[in-house]
Amino acid sequence: MSIITFTSDFGMNDVYVAQVKGVIYSINPKAIIVDVTHNIPAYDIMLGAFTISSLYKYFPDGTVHLVVIDPGVGTDRNILIIRADEQYFVGPDNGVFSLLVQRMQKEHLEADFYTLNASSYYREDFGNTFEARDKMAPVVARLSLGMDYRCLGEKISAIKKLKFPLPSVKSNSVKGSIIYIDNFGNLITNVYIEDIKKDIAHSGIKLNDLTVKLASNVVISGLVESYGHVDRGNPCAIINSSGYIEIGINMGNAAQAMGAKLGDVVLIEFREGK
Amino acid sequence: MSIITFTSDFGMNDVYVAQVKGVIYSINPKAIIVDVTHNIPAYDIMLGAFTISSLYKYFPDGTVHLVVIDPGVGTDRNILIIRADEQYFVGPDNGVFSLLVQRMQKEHLEADFYTLNASSYYREDFGNTFEARDKMAPVVARLSLGMDYRCLGEKISAIKKLKFPLPSVKSNSVKGSIIYIDNFGNLITNVYIEDIKKDIAHSGIKLNDLTVKLASNVVISGLVESYGHVDRGNPCAIINSSGYIEIGINMGNAAQAMGAKLGDVVLIEFREGK
Amino acid sequence: MSIITFTSDFGMNDVYVAQVKGVIYSINPKAIIVDVTHNIPAYDIMLGAFTISSLYKYFPDGTVHLVVIDPGVGTDRNILIIRADEQYFVGPDNGVFSLLVQRMQKEHLEADFYTLNASSYYREDFGNTFEARDKMAPVVARLSLGMDYRCLGEKISAIKKLKFPLPSVKSNSVKGSIIYIDNFGNLITNVYIEDIKKDIAHSGIKLNDLTVKLASNVVISGLVESYGHVDRGNPCAIINSSGYIEIGINMGNAAQAMGAKLGDVVLIEFREGK
Repeated sequence: MSIITFTSDFGMNDVYVAQVKGVIYSINPKAIIVDVTHNIPAYDIMLGAFTISSLYKYFPDGTVHLVVIDPGVGTDRNILIIRADEQYFVGPDNGVFSLLVQRMQKEHLEADFYTLNASSYYREDFGNTFEARDKMAPVVARLSLGMDYRCLGEKISAIKKLKFPLPSVKSNSVKGSIIYIDNFGNLITNVYIEDIKKDIAHSGIKLNDLTVKLASNVVISGLVESYGHVDRGNPCAIINSSGYIEIGINMGNAAQAMGAKLGDVVLIEFREGK
Repeated sequence: MSIITFTSDFGMNDVYVAQVKGVIYSINPKAIIVDVTHNIPAYDIMLGAFTISSLYKYFPDGTVHLVVIDPGVGTDRNILIIRADEQYFVGPDNGVFSLLVQRMQKEHLEADFYTLNASSYYREDFGNTFEARDKMAPVVARLSLGMDYRCLGEKISAIKKLKFPLPSVKSNSVKGSIIYIDNFGNLITNVYIEDIKKDIAHSGIKLNDLTVKLASNVVISGLVESYGHVDRGNPCAIINSSGYIEIGINMGNAAQAMGAKLGDVVLIEFREGK
Repeated sequence: MSIITFTSDFGMNDVYVAQVKGVIYSINPKAIIVDVTHNIPAYDIMLGAFTISSLYKYFPDGTVHLVVIDPGVGTDRNILIIRADEQYFVGPDNGVFSLLVQRMQKEHLEADFYTLNASSYYREDFGNTFEARDKMAPVVARLSLGMDYRCLGEKISAIKKLKFPLPSVKSNSVKGSIIYIDNFGNLITNVYIEDIKKDIAHSGIKLNDLTVKLASNVVISGLVESYGHVDRGNPCAIINSSGYIEIGINMGNAAQAMGAKLGDVVLIEFREGK
């Protein structure tokens, strides 16, 4: 089994993505390469971090995840190989893996960090401007062939962390924000339900008994199971398929209709438990 | 052979498409997954129906087609497994397969309809907000491995039908409409040549001897074999590669140049046969 | 090994790309198809030529490259099979392979040219409007299965050439132009460093000792190794990963910031060598 996922800010117009794939297939012609997205906005490390943290658990053991949002390409920032939860992650050490690792640590999953140091495996004429192609791709291909990651770099104890906007949790309310707007205009908040559950469990609050208030003055009562459970054109809140609280409109585009944008505050108030 | 095609309105920016693929590969690591498009406009079931009906016949026997334009996700609408023409189709029972089935019935091809009912195969922690990932993907993967579709649901006699805009056919004219505008700005009409042929055959009309009139006052005489058969910048009509009458401009964008849009009437007049 | 790359101006919304893939998989279900890009602007043969010439060398021997920017589809223009540098290239004879062949000839690589003439292998009901699907795809699939290319057409001595904008080289300056703007807004010039090297070698000029002047009045001194070697927001020039001189802004979008566009003149002045 040799599945490789590929996430980047390269876009879909240029030849860059295919060059990386050519290098991988030249080494492992049996690789299965899955494009996650190449439409991460240029240099948006946070969004890359959010994407890979929402992705990996759906892939089988042994999958290698290549994540290239890399404004520091060619400088002395490290290239990482992370081994965690039976999977591998390769990309720049600029914080793009920090949300993933933070999430894993909450689940008490071990992670090994290595800095890539394997010039004998790089492309022969490698340069400094396209390390994804010249350095990462050959290593990703070899990981997918089963090479031991410990032969490809040096162990380090920590990786670079990004500061993610975290919700502030009080006894009966959570103040979060919109961290992502998807293709349907749904508003994904940073309120991760597993985190909230622990924080509010002691007060006997029932999760569904809440009110969601958006910066744009929209107020939503309660959670529903899916968008189809409210009438067409109506707003609602759900726990989305990745575990975050999300606001949407059945058959509509919430971002447009509510004038909501990235970073907007979302206030969630719980009623007292019985 | 285990080819899976995947059509959706998920877009190419979000993590949804890759999550579905991860679930499929976790069950069938040898699957070949072909992205048809994920750029169907949100909730546009008609366009999804048009797409899959134009696609399937180019794929080999045994192919599994996953089509997810699913505004009713999580409600009590059924999930379908259709077996027809040696291929499989999985997606919501909201009409997205109705054009396909209608076309097959005209060709006297049998189709078996099943509603998915196989919770033992769903993802362990399946929810109601992403059934493509949690319910359809595991079933699609198993179909691609050769599992008998009759073990995955209950037989039903009919599926939901959409009302497609059909052309009205008279003895010497057809009134159709533009149902699709492609990447080149070509205008694809709903005038399917196989249908027309039967309707007009008795009057001895020669297909090429026609005039195409667009809502935008453009008038085109006759059909040509391909766009390159008229001078650069000139409009023409062809029978396109899927069998529909299509209007375009050689080396140009007909939609822009003619101010044509989806739904516009297209009148086709045939001259008397000799 | 049976890798097929696929470059086109079909876009990502329509069913065309997937139809071509269906035909290929029907003949070679073990093919690996790599989408290079389908976002080449409609009919832009030059950009197609630039893309495939920048791509092929990253793929293994035996790879088949399908390139379809084909405004003359269905006319009497030839369809080419080129065998060169242990790889295969299939597409219309309209100049889309001329930059590639020109580059290969500079490297003294042999190329065999054949015009496709293999109707027994075409799709049964092939027409004139979608030759990529009906004629090229079946042939590409067979090449990927190892069929001898010499059985698929007739040898010809030359292919159609496009006139590419070439830089004019003087003893201490080069006048080039912007031929591509990538996803990051980086400005790729037509100044290919291998060409320049030979031309200026005799005058003892050091490559890094240069000044780059853009039409938009931006002046950049010297080359750096990668964008990260200048401060955030600063412009710089590099030799990019394909060997061209490229102008960008660290963490920024040069095209937007400099108001630069395709075709703009780029003047490169070298100082006297010591």
